[in-house]
Amino acid sequence: MTTHPRPFTLFTGQWADLTLEEVAGLAAGWGYDGLEIAVSGEHLDAWRWDDEAYVAERLALLERHGLQLFAISNHLKGQAVCDDPIDERHRDLVGSRVWGDGDPEGVRQRAAEEMQHTARLAQKLGVKTVVGFTGSSIWPYVAMFPPVSAERIEAGFTDFADRWNPILDVFDECGVRFAHEVHPSEIAYDHWSTVRTLEAIGHRPGFGLNWDPSHMVWQDIDPVSFITDFADRIYHVDCKDTRMRVGNGRNGRLGSHLPWGDPRRGWDFVSAGRGDVPWEDCFRALSAIGYDGPISVEWEDAGMDRLHGAPEALAYLRRLDFPPATASFDAAFKQD
Amino acid sequence: MTTHPRPFTLFTGQWADLTLEEVAGLAAGWGYDGLEIAVSGEHLDAWRWDDEAYVAERLALLERHGLQLFAISNHLKGQAVCDDPIDERHRDLVGSRVWGDGDPEGVRQRAAEEMQHTARLAQKLGVKTVVGFTGSSIWPYVAMFPPVSAERIEAGFTDFADRWNPILDVFDECGVRFAHEVHPSEIAYDHWSTVRTLEAIGHRPGFGLNWDPSHMVWQDIDPVSFITDFADRIYHVDCKDTRMRVGNGRNGRLGSHLPWGDPRRGWDFVSAGRGDVPWEDCFRALSAIGYDGPISVEWEDAGMDRLHGAPEALAYLRRLDFPPATASFDAAFKQD
Amino acid sequence: MTTHPRPFTLFTGQWADLTLEEVAGLAAGWGYDGLEIAVSGEHLDAWRWDDEAYVAERLALLERHGLQLFAISNHLKGQAVCDDPIDERHRDLVGSRVWGDGDPEGVRQRAAEEMQHTARLAQKLGVKTVVGFTGSSIWPYVAMFPPVSAERIEAGFTDFADRWNPILDVFDECGVRFAHEVHPSEIAYDHWSTVRTLEAIGHRPGFGLNWDPSHMVWQDIDPVSFITDFADRIYHVDCKDTRMRVGNGRNGRLGSHLPWGDPRRGWDFVSAGRGDVPWEDCFRALSAIGYDGPISVEWEDAGMDRLHGAPEALAYLRRLDFPPATASFDAAFKQD
Amino acid sequence: MTTHPRPFTLFTGQWADLTLEEVAGLAAGWGYDGLEIAVSGEHLDAWRWDDEAYVAERLALLERHGLQLFAISNHLKGQAVCDDPIDERHRDLVGSRVWGDGDPEGVRQRAAEEMQHTARLAQKLGVKTVVGFTGSSIWPYVAMFPPVSAERIEAGFTDFADRWNPILDVFDECGVRFAHEVHPSEIAYDHWSTVRTLEAIGHRPGFGLNWDPSHMVWQDIDPVSFITDFADRIYHVDCKDTRMRVGNGRNGRLGSHLPWGDPRRGWDFVSAGRGDVPWEDCFRALSAIGYDGPISVEWEDAGMDRLHGAPEALAYLRRLDFPPATASFDAAFKQD
Amino acid sequence: MTTHPRPFTLFTGQWADLTLEEVAGLAAGWGYDGLEIAVSGEHLDAWRWDDEAYVAERLALLERHGLQLFAISNHLKGQAVCDDPIDERHRDLVGSRVWGDGDPEGVRQRAAEEMQHTARLAQKLGVKTVVGFTGSSIWPYVAMFPPVSAERIEAGFTDFADRWNPILDVFDECGVRFAHEVHPSEIAYDHWSTVRTLEAIGHRPGFGLNWDPSHMVWQDIDPVSFITDFADRIYHVDCKDTRMRVGNGRNGRLGSHLPWGDPRRGWDFVSAGRGDVPWEDCFRALSAIGYDGPISVEWEDAGMDRLHGAPEALAYLRRLDFPPATASFDAAFKQD
Amino acid sequence: MTTHPRPFTLFTGQWADLTLEEVAGLAAGWGYDGLEIAVSGEHLDAWRWDDEAYVAERLALLERHGLQLFAISNHLKGQAVCDDPIDERHRDLVGSRVWGDGDPEGVRQRAAEEMQHTARLAQKLGVKTVVGFTGSSIWPYVAMFPPVSAERIEAGFTDFADRWNPILDVFDECGVRFAHEVHPSEIAYDHWSTVRTLEAIGHRPGFGLNWDPSHMVWQDIDPVSFITDFADRIYHVDCKDTRMRVGNGRNGRLGSHLPWGDPRRGWDFVSAGRGDVPWEDCFRALSAIGYDGPISVEWEDAGMDRLHGAPEALAYLRRLDFPPATASFDAAFKQD
Repeated sequence: MTTHPRPFTLFTGQWADLTLEEVAGLAAGWGYDGLEIAVSGEHLDAWRWDDEAYVAERLALLERHGLQLFAISNHLKGQAVCDDPIDERHRDLVGSRVWGDGDPEGVRQRAAEEMQHTARLAQKLGVKTVVGFTGSSIWPYVAMFPPVSAERIEAGFTDFADRWNPILDVFDECGVRFAHEVHPSEIAYDHWSTVRTLEAIGHRPGFGLNWDPSHMVWQDIDPVSFITDFADRIYHVDCKDTRMRVGNGRNGRLGSHLPWGDPRRGWDFVSAGRGDVPWEDCFRALSAIGYDGPISVEWEDAGMDRLHGAPEALAYLRRLDFPPATASFDAAFKQD
Repeated sequence: MTTHPRPFTLFTGQWADLTLEEVAGLAAGWGYDGLEIAVSGEHLDAWRWDDEAYVAERLALLERHGLQLFAISNHLKGQAVCDDPIDERHRDLVGSRVWGDGDPEGVRQRAAEEMQHTARLAQKLGVKTVVGFTGSSIWPYVAMFPPVSAERIEAGFTDFADRWNPILDVFDECGVRFAHEVHPSEIAYDHWSTVRTLEAIGHRPGFGLNWDPSHMVWQDIDPVSFITDFADRIYHVDCKDTRMRVGNGRNGRLGSHLPWGDPRRGWDFVSAGRGDVPWEDCFRALSAIGYDGPISVEWEDAGMDRLHGAPEALAYLRRLDFPPATASFDAAFKQD
Repeated sequence: MTTHPRPFTLFTGQWADLTLEEVAGLAAGWGYDGLEIAVSGEHLDAWRWDDEAYVAERLALLERHGLQLFAISNHLKGQAVCDDPIDERHRDLVGSRVWGDGDPEGVRQRAAEEMQHTARLAQKLGVKTVVGFTGSSIWPYVAMFPPVSAERIEAGFTDFADRWNPILDVFDECGVRFAHEVHPSEIAYDHWSTVRTLEAIGHRPGFGLNWDPSHMVWQDIDPVSFITDFADRIYHVDCKDTRMRVGNGRNGRLGSHLPWGDPRRGWDFVSAGRGDVPWEDCFRALSAIGYDGPISVEWEDAGMDRLHGAPEALAYLRRLDFPPATASFDAAFKQD
Repeated sequence: MTTHPRPFTLFTGQWADLTLEEVAGLAAGWGYDGLEIAVSGEHLDAWRWDDEAYVAERLALLERHGLQLFAISNHLKGQAVCDDPIDERHRDLVGSRVWGDGDPEGVRQRAAEEMQHTARLAQKLGVKTVVGFTGSSIWPYVAMFPPVSAERIEAGFTDFADRWNPILDVFDECGVRFAHEVHPSEIAYDHWSTVRTLEAIGHRPGFGLNWDPSHMVWQDIDPVSFITDFADRIYHVDCKDTRMRVGNGRNGRLGSHLPWGDPRRGWDFVSAGRGDVPWEDCFRALSAIGYDGPISVEWEDAGMDRLHGAPEALAYLRRLDFPPATASFDAAFKQD
Repeated sequence: MTTHPRPFTLFTGQWADLTLEEVAGLAAGWGYDGLEIAVSGEHLDAWRWDDEAYVAERLALLERHGLQLFAISNHLKGQAVCDDPIDERHRDLVGSRVWGDGDPEGVRQRAAEEMQHTARLAQKLGVKTVVGFTGSSIWPYVAMFPPVSAERIEAGFTDFADRWNPILDVFDECGVRFAHEVHPSEIAYDHWSTVRTLEAIGHRPGFGLNWDPSHMVWQDIDPVSFITDFADRIYHVDCKDTRMRVGNGRNGRLGSHLPWGDPRRGWDFVSAGRGDVPWEDCFRALSAIGYDGPISVEWEDAGMDRLHGAPEALAYLRRLDFPPATASFDAAFKQD
Repeated sequence: MTTHPRPFTLFTGQWADLTLEEVAGLAAGWGYDGLEIAVSGEHLDAWRWDDEAYVAERLALLERHGLQLFAISNHLKGQAVCDDPIDERHRDLVGSRVWGDGDPEGVRQRAAEEMQHTARLAQKLGVKTVVGFTGSSIWPYVAMFPPVSAERIEAGFTDFADRWNPILDVFDECGVRFAHEVHPSEIAYDHWSTVRTLEAIGHRPGFGLNWDPSHMVWQDIDPVSFITDFADRIYHVDCKDTRMRVGNGRNGRLGSHLPWGDPRRGWDFVSAGRGDVPWEDCFRALSAIGYDGPISVEWEDAGMDRLHGAPEALAYLRRLDFPPATASFDAAFKQD
C-alpha cells in the first residue's frame, strides 16, 4: 500500500537566483510539503557536509517553514563527471571550485569528488536519496555520424562505470542512493540505454532512477511502462511536463536550435498538467509499484511566470493524489 | 426537448456491503437526486414484491433521504437466465434461493422466475424500467476456437428468446420495460450482436437497452453512434468509464487475466471522467434523441476510494448537464 | 512583450435579437472587458457614421457598463460585396437599405458602400479594426464539378481585388484596418487561398485577418501554424470552437445538409473549450508573435443555452491568459 | 456466390476526345472485358435511341473488339436536371441540344428529357443500368453560410424527387435502373444525404447507387461500410482513387481552389491503387453482399499519362479479383 | 548469422480433408520446401509412433515430393489437455480414440497421452519441434464477469503446469521441444499471460513458443517486440495474417459472433501479406535474434480459394527472405 | 515540364571498398543510368582536379559502362569544415592529406580547401552540382543541456557562413552549385534550421539543398512539404529510406546508441521502398516543382545484402517514374 496523501515537494534548481529562505517561503505559502534542494548556489554546498552548524541551520530553515526534506539533488556537478568535451557551458554550471583551471580531466575529478560529498551531506541531512545527472562521454555520438564504432560506445559505458563506481561506494557507506535522471546528454536517456546503464553498473542497488517523464514523451518512450519496467529502480519522482508541437510537417523533434518557448520547436517544456504526459496513468502506475517517496515538481515553462505556475502545477498534481481503493469493487456483488 | 436539469442517480450494486439506508445517506449527502437500486442483498428483494409493507418501507426510506427512484436493476440473476455453464461464480452471485441445489437448469429457471418478480416489484415501486443482464449460452464461444458452427450460434439466440420471452410477457403485464446492459458475457455485447438480439426478440418494445459505454470503448464500438443507431431502444443510461492502456505493444485488449487496477491490463474501469469515454459527445447525442430518463453513475475504479470517487463522478457529469439552446444562433443574423 | 492581462470581448453578432444595451448588461455582468459590436440590427448602423450624437450615445452606452471597444465587425454586408449568386439568403442578412430592389449588382455595390461607411464609423468610434467577411464569386465552384477553368478562378480573385480595393482606400483614409475572417464561403477560407488572397490585394497593409480557428479544424488546417505563418496579418482574434464528430465512417466533413446540433454532422460549433481547437497552443503562439489586441468570444453552440455558455467560455479562455515568463528558467542554473 | 472472374470495364467519359472506336481499341488491347460508355460526344447519343441502325452499329463496334456492355452512363446531362444556378460550366457539359437558348429551366427540362431517352437507349442496347449524376438545387448551400433554413433544404430534396420521379417512370417502363454516383455537387454526396435521398424518392427500386469511393475518402466516409449499409442499392461500381495530402497543417480538405495535381491540395485523384481507398476491403465487401455486376475503371490522375495509367489500374484491380473460398477453412479440423 | 535462404513449409492442418499425399503434391508444386504436418486425420497418427513401417512410409512420401520436415503439430489434442468445459466442439476435434465416452477428465487424460506420443513420433521422424495448443481451464473467465477470484486464476496456471509437466518430461526424454502457439482459448494468449505461463512451467527449456502474429494484431500486441522479448523461446514460426476492420464504430474487436469472412467482424484472417501484420519488421527481428528454423505458412482466408492463396502467400513471404548484409555500410566511408 | 524518363544514378559512397570500375560495372549491369561519384578513396580525388589525364580517364571509365554523370559528392570532407570537436571519427573520414597533424583548425582549413578543389573538379568533369555536408560547430548543443545561449547558436551560424562563403566563391567561379544534404550533425538538419541556414548564407544561389528524406521521417519533418517549401533550392535528390520502429513505448527516436540493424532502435535505414518515406507523393511533388535532375540512390540497409538491394531499389523507384499527363482529364467532358 502506498502512502496517502503523498508529500509534494518543489525542486529548487530553477529558483537558484533566490535564496533558499525565499524559495522556502514561497513553497510553503503555496502549500508544498517540502523541498528537493539543489546543491547549487546558496541553496546547498556539498563541500560543507561536515560543518554541523551549517547542516543544522539548513534544517532549521526548513523547519521554520514547516517543510520536509526527502531528497537533495546535484545535477550540475554530476553532469561534469563523465562529459567530454568539457567546455564553457560547464564552467557556468559547476562553480569555480570544481572548474578550477578548467582542465577537463581535473574538472571531472573534482565534480566526482563533489558527488561523494553530496552523499555525505545527504546522510547528514537525514535523507536517503540524491537526485542527479551522470554526464556521458558518448552523448555527442548520438547522431551516429560521423560513424562511431561499437567499441567506442562500449567504452563510453565502461567510462561511466569506472567514474561512478567510486562515487557509489561512498553512497553505500552513507546509506544513501543515487537517483539518475534519464535525460538526453546523459549516459541513460531512454529505455534501452537505461537497460544498458544498469548492466554497466552491475545493477548495484546504490544506483537507481529519478523518473522524470518530460524527455520520454518527445522520444516516444512510454513513461507509464517505464515505471513498471524499472519498478525496483524508481527511487525518486520529478514532475516536468512536455507539450508536443510536431504535426505540421515543419516543427522537428530536434528543435532546430530554437530557444525554449519558440512555437516552431517540435516540443517544449510546460507547467505540469499543460502538456502531453499521461499523468494520471503514471500516478496509478506509481501506486501499483508501491512507490512511496515524494512527488517533486521540477517547474519549467518558458511561456509562464513561475510564480503563477508553481502553485498551479501543485494543484493540478494533487488532483491525482486521490485516496486508493480499500476493497475490490466486485466483492460487493457477492450474495449470501 | 429533453428534461433539464437531468436527475442523477447512484447505482447501488457496488455498495451492497452497506445497507440501503447507508447508501441512501451517502448518496443524498453527495447531492445525488436518486438511486438505481440493485435487487441484491439487503437493498431489494424481488421475492417480496407482493409484500406491501416491505415496498412501502423501501419507498419511505428513499423519501426520508429526499431521493427519487427511476429504475431498479437485477444484473446478477439476469446473468443466470441463459448462462452455460452455471458454476461457482454464479453461486456467489445469485443467492441461495436461486442457487438451490445448484443444478444448472434449475438455477436458470429460478433466476428467470426472479426476473419476473423483479418486474412486479418495479410496478409496485412505481418505476418503469428494470436494468439488467441476460446471460448467454454462446458467450464462451467468443474466441471461435475450438470451431463453433453457425447453427450453434443461432441456437444461442433462440435460447435467449425462448428464455426471455416469458419473462418479458410479465414485464408487459406490469407496464415495465427491461433495459439490457450491452456487455461481454451477455447475449448482446457490441453493435452487431445487439442488432441480432433485437431481431431474435422480434423488436418487442418491452426489451430495450441500458447504455453503458464502458465496455464499448475497449471493443472499438463508438458509444455516440450507438445512441443514435439504437435511439428508440435507449431505455436507461449507466455511466461507467474505461481508460485504455494499450499502446506499448505488450498490454492487450483481453487483459491477460490480470486483476482490475493492474497497470499491465490493456484497459481498466475508472471513475467517470477519468477515462476515454467521450462523455460530452454522448450527452449531446442523448439530448438529440430526446432521452429523458435518469443519468445513473455505476461507480467502479480499482485505484480510487469509492467515497472519494462517487461525489467526484457526480460533479464531473453534472458539468455536462448544461441547459440546452432555446433558439438557433444564426436566427439572430436576420435583418429586417 | 504582449499585454497582460489581455482584454476579453464578446462579439454581439449572435445576440442581435437583443438590444445593445441588453447585451452590454449581460457581458459586463459576466466579467467581459468589452464588446466587438456587430454592425447589424439595432447594435450599430454604419450609415449613421456622421451622426455625432448617435456615435456619442453608443460610446456612452458602453461606458455606462464599463466596457471597452477595440473593434467593430460587419460580416453580413461584407459577404454581399462579392457573392454570386445573390439570393434570398442575402436578403435576410443585408437589411432593406442594401437589398433595395434586389438586383444583384446593385446589392453588391450598396454593400460595398456600407463597408466604406463602416470604416468611417470605426474611425468615429475610435477603433482601428473592422472585422468581417469578403464574399466570393468563386466559392460555388469549390467542388470543382462541373469543371471550372483556371481562368475562372483567377477571375474570382481579380473580382475580389477590384471590389475591395476601393473599400480599402477608404479604410486607409480613416486609419482603420480590415480583418477578414478566413471562412468557407469567402475568398480566403484556408491556408493557400489566404496566401492567394493576400497576393491578389498586393499585401496592402489595410487588409489583414481575423483569426478564428473554428473552420480551420475541420478542414485540417493547423490554427497554430496559421498564426505564425501569417504573423504580420493577424489583426484580430475571434474564439469559436469546433468539435469533430467524424470517425464512425458515416459522419462526413461536409455535414450532409444537416442542421447545427445534429449528432450525425461530421463537426459542429461548440462553446469555446468544449471542442478540438488546441487553444493553449494557439494562445502561446499569439504571445510569441506579439499579438496585443483583444480576445473576442464569438459564441455559437446549438446544444447549449447561450446564457450559460457565454460566461463559461470567458472563464475557460481566461485560464489561458496566464502571466508570461519574466526570465529564462535555465538562467538560474548558472553558478558563480 | 458472386461471379468470378468479374468483368472489368473502362468508363469512356474521360476519353471523349477520342472516338469510341479508338477507345474500344485501346481498352481491348489492354485486356478490358468491356466498356461503360458515356452518353457524351461521339460515344453515344441518347436522342438516337430509336434509330435501330445506330444502335446496331454501336453494338457491332463493341463486338468487333470483343468487348461487352453492362452499363452506360450520362453524368453530364443528369447534372443539369436539378442544378441551380445553371451557368457557363453547364453549357460546356450538356451540348447545344440541351443547352438551347440557355434559359435555366429549359435546360433542366431538356436534360431530364435526355435522361429519359438514355433509359430507352439502354433498353435498346440490352443493358440494365444507367450510371449518372442527379444535380442538386441545394448544393451551393453546403457551407451553411449565409444561413439556410431547414425548409430550404427540404425543398431541395423535394425538387429532386419532383424532377426525377418522371424520369424514373421511364426507367421502370424500360426495365432499366438508374445508379446515382454519390458525389459532391449532387443531391446525395455522403452517407446521411444518401439516406435522405433514398427517403425522398420513396426507396423506389429504379433508383440506386453507383459506388465510387473516391469522394468518400476525403470526406471521412468509410467506403467499406457504405457497401454493407446500402447493400441492396449498389447497382454499379466505379473505381477511382483518391490520395490524401493533408497532414502538414496547410493543405486543406476543400482544396484552396487549386487545380488537380497541385501538391498543395489536401487530396487529389490518382490512378486506382495509388491512393487511400482500401480497395481490398471494398472488394471483399462487394463479394459479401453478392454484387455481381462489372467493375468499371473511371480513370483520372492529373500526374500520369492516361495511356500508362489505364492498363496499370486494370492490372492492379485484377489482383483483387482472386477466386473466392469454396469451403470453410476450419471444416478441415474435424476428425472422425 | 541466420540461415539463408530460409526453408518455407506449409502447415497441413487446414488441408486435412485431403490426403497427405495430395497436400504434398500441391505444396511441392507451388515451391514449398517442406511441410509442417498436423497430427490429424490421415496426415499423421501419433498412436502409431512405434510402428516403424508407418514412420518410414510417411518419410518416404515426403521424400518422393522432395519435401523436408522440420516440425509436426498437434493443436487439436493439445487443446483438450486443460480445457474446461469439454463439449461437443472438442468431440469434433479430438477423434474417437481420445473422445472415448466423452467423460471430460478421461478426454483430458487421453489427450495428454496423445501429446506424449506426439513427442515420441517427432523423435522417430527426426524432428526437434512439436507445435501445438495447451488448452486452458480459465479461458472462459476472460471477460472477468461473473467475477472470478485471483485464486481461481492462479489455480488455472497451476492446473496447466500439473497437466503439462508430465507431457514435457516425455518431450525431454525424446529430445523434442514443444512450441505453444500463443492464441485466445489457450493458457498463454498475449504478452503478460505468456510471461505468467513461462513462470508457471519454471521456464523449462522443453516448453517454448510458436510465434504466430495473427492473434496479436487484434489484441494490440506488437508481434515484433514479442520476438525480441521472448527471443530465447521462439522455437517455431507460423505465418497467418489478420486484417483489422474496426474504425467505423460498429465493427467490434470481439467479432459479434459473426462467421469468418463477414465484413462486419472487427478483424478477420487473410492470406499472408494481405493483412496488418508488419511482416518485414517481423522477419528482420527474427534475423536479429538468430532464428534459424522454418517459416511455416498457416493458411486461412475465408474470402479466397486456398488453391490461389497458398502459392500467393509463399511468394509474398519469400520476398522478405532477402540475403542479409555481409558488412556494415558505413565501413566503406573509411579513408586511408 | 519535367524530364521523362528521369535518369537514375547510384551514389558510390557506400561502395568505396570497391574500385570505381567495379561499382560502374555493377551499376550498369543493374540498369542504372549513371553514378553520383563520391570524392572518396579511389573513386575521385579532388586534389587532382587540374590533372587533365586523370579527369579524362574517369570520364572514359564511365563512358565504357554507358553511364552518365550529373553530380559528384564530397560529404566526408564537407563534414570537417565546421565541426567542433574534430576527433578520431574525422580522422577515419577525411584521409591523411586533410588530417595532417590532426590539429583541429588545420583539419578544418584543409577540408575547406578540398571543397574548393571539388568545385573545380566538378567543372572539369562537366557537372553542375556537388552534393555534400557542411558540418556544424553547434550540433553538439542539440539537446540544449548543459544550457547554451542564443548567442552561441548565432555564432554557430555565423561560423558556418564565414567558413563556407569562401568555398562558395570558388563554386560561383566554376559555375557549380553546392547541394547541402539536410542531416543531423550538419548546420541544417530540419525545416527551421534550413530556413536559418539559407538566411545565414544570404540565400546565395550557389548554396542549395540535396533532398534526402531519410532523416526527415524520424524527425517528423514532412519530406513532401519540404520540396514545395524549398522549391527553388532543390538542386539534387538522394533516395534513402527510413523505417520507423517506435510505437512499443521502449524504442526511442534517439536510438539508444544501438547499432544499425538492431530491432530495438526507434528507426533504421532500409532499402528504398521498404520504409516510411511517402515516395510517390515526393516524386509527384518533384514533378510539380519542375525538378529535372537525376534521382540518385543512396543505398543503406543494415539488414540486406547490398548486391540484392541496389537493383531492387532501382526497380522500386522506377515504378514512380511514370509518364506525366499530357492533358487535363476533365477537358474531355466538354461537349460541342
